[in-house]
Amino acid sequence: MPTATQEDRLSETFAALANSTRRAILDQLAKSAATVNELAEPFEMTLPAISKHIKVLERAGLVIRGQQAQFRPCALDAAPLEEIATWAEQYRPVWESRLDRMDDYVRQLLQTQRRERGTR
Amino acid sequence: MPTATQEDRLSETFAALANSTRRAILDQLAKSAATVNELAEPFEMTLPAISKHIKVLERAGLVIRGQQAQFRPCALDAAPLEEIATWAEQYRPVWESRLDRMDDYVRQLLQTQRRERGTR
Repeated sequence: MPTATQEDRLSETFAALANSTRRAILDQLAKSAATVNELAEPFEMTLPAISKHIKVLERAGLVIRGQQAQFRPCALDAAPLEEIATWAEQYRPVWESRLDRMDDYVRQLLQTQRRERGTR
Repeated sequence: MPTATQEDRLSETFAALANSTRRAILDQLAKSAATVNELAEPFEMTLPAISKHIKVLERAGLVIRGQQAQFRPCALDAAPLEEIATWAEQYRPVWESRLDRMDDYVRQLLQTQRRERGTR
């Protein structure tokens, strides 16, 4: 069972990912590290707005910043994304059995109908 | 590229998952469908509190409700979880290359140090 800290970290990662701009930033950073200025450009956002998003990603451990005082380039840390993937994958048997269960349901419906017709 | 609607749905799914109680509810529902009363018990939560969480999960398409007026059992719909897994998996090359890159970095550091010693 996951610990309280792991649960908190998962919640923070999911919250950070619940925004399309932040996901687009991660997409950019997956291609290469970039400064805040470089990230602000394609998104046509103000520096403070983009900085705020980056801080959320940083707190969730999805972005790490370099130490060069002027530029502090941002880089993607994909480790929390691996945790998300592992978490979601535990439900694979459920989504894979979905179509099977729909099949079963339809089969049951047909059987019930046939039985009802038979007893009438 | 995902459409605006797909992006919104992803955001809604991530937001719904950013809460450990809601994730625990999904875990329960993965075992079997349950009424709100049955779900409220193990979580020691009031019915209105659990109902609120279920509504968030329902809006995100993670929970579907039965039509029996009195009980309206809740069931898990794992389809959005498959989307989350697929989304996260696109970053697999990044997290898998992480250790490789750390290796490269250490190797580069050592080379630089050796070169600096050689030129002194």
